Amino acid sequence: RCDPSDNLDYARTLLDIFVDRHFISPGHRNVELFKRGTICSYGPLGTELRDNVLHQWWRSMSGSKDQVFGINTPSSSGSQDATGGRWGHLRVAEPDDLQKILKETELSREQLVQNLHMLLQTSPLLRTSLFHGSLEQFVPIFELVNRKLPFGIAETGRCFQPSKEGDGCPAEVTEASLVWFCSPRTSSQWMDHWARQRLKWWRKFALAPSDFSSSDVPQGELEGAASRGVKIFYRFPWGQEPLEVLWSRGDGELLQMHKGIRSKLQSRDGRKSIPHIVSTTGNIDRGLLAFLYNSLQLHKREDTKQKLQQRKVLKLHPLLAPVKVALGIGRGATMELRQVCDGLLQDLKEAKISAWPGYLESSSMPMEQLNSKYDEMGVLFTAVISESTLESGLLQLRSRDTTIKETMHISELTNFLCRYISAAGNM
Amino acid sequence: RCDPSDNLDYARTLLDIFVDRHFISPGHRNVELFKRGTICSYGPLGTELRDNVLHQWWRSMSGSKDQVFGINTPSSSGSQDATGGRWGHLRVAEPDDLQKILKETELSREQLVQNLHMLLQTSPLLRTSLFHGSLEQFVPIFELVNRKLPFGIAETGRCFQPSKEGDGCPAEVTEASLVWFCSPRTSSQWMDHWARQRLKWWRKFALAPSDFSSSDVPQGELEGAASRGVKIFYRFPWGQEPLEVLWSRGDGELLQMHKGIRSKLQSRDGRKSIPHIVSTTGNIDRGLLAFLYNSLQLHKREDTKQKLQQRKVLKLHPLLAPVKVALGIGRGATMELRQVCDGLLQDLKEAKISAWPGYLESSSMPMEQLNSKYDEMGVLFTAVISESTLESGLLQLRSRDTTIKETMHISELTNFLCRYISAAGNM
Repeated sequence: RCDPSDNLDYARTLLDIFVDRHFISPGHRNVELFKRGTICSYGPLGTELRDNVLHQWWRSMSGSKDQVFGINTPSSSGSQDATGGRWGHLRVAEPDDLQKILKETELSREQLVQNLHMLLQTSPLLRTSLFHGSLEQFVPIFELVNRKLPFGIAETGRCFQPSKEGDGCPAEVTEASLVWFCSPRTSSQWMDHWARQRLKWWRKFALAPSDFSSSDVPQGELEGAASRGVKIFYRFPWGQEPLEVLWSRGDGELLQMHKGIRSKLQSRDGRKSIPHIVSTTGNIDRGLLAFLYNSLQLHKREDTKQKLQQRKVLKLHPLLAPVKVALGIGRGATMELRQVCDGLLQDLKEAKISAWPGYLESSSMPMEQLNSKYDEMGVLFTAVISESTLESGLLQLRSRDTTIKETMHISELTNFLCRYISAAGNM
Repeated sequence: RCDPSDNLDYARTLLDIFVDRHFISPGHRNVELFKRGTICSYGPLGTELRDNVLHQWWRSMSGSKDQVFGINTPSSSGSQDATGGRWGHLRVAEPDDLQKILKETELSREQLVQNLHMLLQTSPLLRTSLFHGSLEQFVPIFELVNRKLPFGIAETGRCFQPSKEGDGCPAEVTEASLVWFCSPRTSSQWMDHWARQRLKWWRKFALAPSDFSSSDVPQGELEGAASRGVKIFYRFPWGQEPLEVLWSRGDGELLQMHKGIRSKLQSRDGRKSIPHIVSTTGNIDRGLLAFLYNSLQLHKREDTKQKLQQRKVLKLHPLLAPVKVALGIGRGATMELRQVCDGLLQDLKEAKISAWPGYLESSSMPMEQLNSKYDEMGVLFTAVISESTLESGLLQLRSRDTTIKETMHISELTNFLCRYISAAGNM
């Protein structure tokens, strides 16, 4: 994979699979949105994968010993707040209001322009990040923890950025944000801690962890109040792109937001210090793209007719895989087999194991072809119920990663899968 | 509670509790947004409650025997799509583009107005509902199920509506939408089925189920293509408001979206019928408000000094309660007790039971006052670790609903809570 055009062909092949296997919806524009790392129309598998990624993010935040509080805030804000005239923000326009001004024929050109300026300045802003919302909510949560540091405020949600591609379409991104408040003298240690933790988190779910890397932001590229920055990158076939950014931001923004009223912001330790902020913001949509690219393996192999075939396997981490098990039926008394599958499907759902009802697909695809399809979907296991299952209770279980088939009693399947997934989570 | 002003006082008392107990952030404007049933700034407890409600909604959709596929779509759409000139939609404006036009001094008044009209018509729309996204994704998912009916497409997410209060602030709502595709001859049965199911779902989590009701939409109030409608209401202290709306919509919108190309839309049954649609859309934010109002109980009681006190208990359903157990410490060797609590907290987190580290709060509140606070937070159980726990391994467990305290071995707590919550889910 050294030739760049090869790389791009490879990228294209992968994108086709993501569409064919219902990770994302078809259509050139949709695929473009996806490739840019912005929100696109996700199909059923992409939606499940995205939920799993978000779920793991929350678990990593709330599962740690540190106190992290989740919040949820509106994505638009009245213009009357402190954010007033920020640049680079999209605004929400009510077409009726604009039309009303345009229709006032007695207005002079100057008055018209003035009224439009006014309307623009007073229309609500769409958030470009979740940082602002966490700053706003600082005070009540600070009281909740009895003004003790450190603690964090976490939020996931959509943010809106003006289009960079000049196509007039705003870029929507699912951000996952942690704003960490700590004492001034520990902020540099916390910055190191979170930079390490976050890279570890991305790599935990990777097949090839070395494609995820982190590096310090050069002094000249520091944004806003930040005194230090770290970016976590993924190496895509077309180049490196950032997945997450950490900033060490000091106390300036907190003081500004709360108009310098230090008494509200002082911690209860001896020094009455104003908390310093370390923030980390991940782009979940681009993260999804990274995990998908990272987990796809191409195996060349000869089939039974000695033709060279390519086996494509999406080796998504067991915790992320959108479908854990597909249920299929072999030859036999179809009606009875279906009933067995229905029961098994219900058991799996109750155990919160996402299962694919392959037996409902009417197409009588040969098993090998079905397996290829499930491999491209990232399905961890395929369980086949056949005539003999009715007699012995035994089913055939095929593993995506080893392609080995083993025999298992039907009553053991749910437990086996639970243990398998939870073991993968503890590694 | 017959006097309407009493009712409003009562409503006010409750809202104060929701702010004090970190369900929502403080501030008049935020409380107003919450009361309207729109997205506000949720605090840590409100965020957890909202996640639990959404989680239960998804479980009810994907847990049924019917095939429901989840999707996730952008909230803004290019203006080039079929939705073109719809009314009542907010648009996303790029201030820079607008400024550029306003600055072109050589334009005449007419040219200026014309350019602004053009800009307005080509700027992206913000979605007002999730229905459109599901219609767009119909074709690939129809292929996925081999063109067999019925099946559903589900999505949850934010929608934007122009402000009704004239304050220029768009109303953001978290919608939960199911679009159900079925054969024409079964659509009326499915409408009945979903209306029943959805009311049952709301009532499942209610303390006073009769406050949730449903009724047919009068013929004159049917919207768009709908031939029948059902609304599910909640009786708030200030009157009845809709939580969810179901429409029986026929096949018109599907045909229109896919430009009448019937071959793409025909099902594989004998009749080659075009699917009919039953849609149901819930407002999760107003649902949250309803569950909170519904579960708050006021008990008058005399305290030890014979003063009349009001005990307020938020009896949220065990599946919805944002905190399942609070950990507190009694008198004793604090350092060791804290270590025991740390370990227990970690166990609970691993079992995915949301626990409140009450032992970290430095304030030495008397136990009775702490219990009142936890009751207002809707905390299911309070576990108290004390000196004697270190010797015997026994802790005191107090139930929110019965106020009875019982003794339990520390090793049994996690299992007890898992069983308790799962039993409540199966009722």
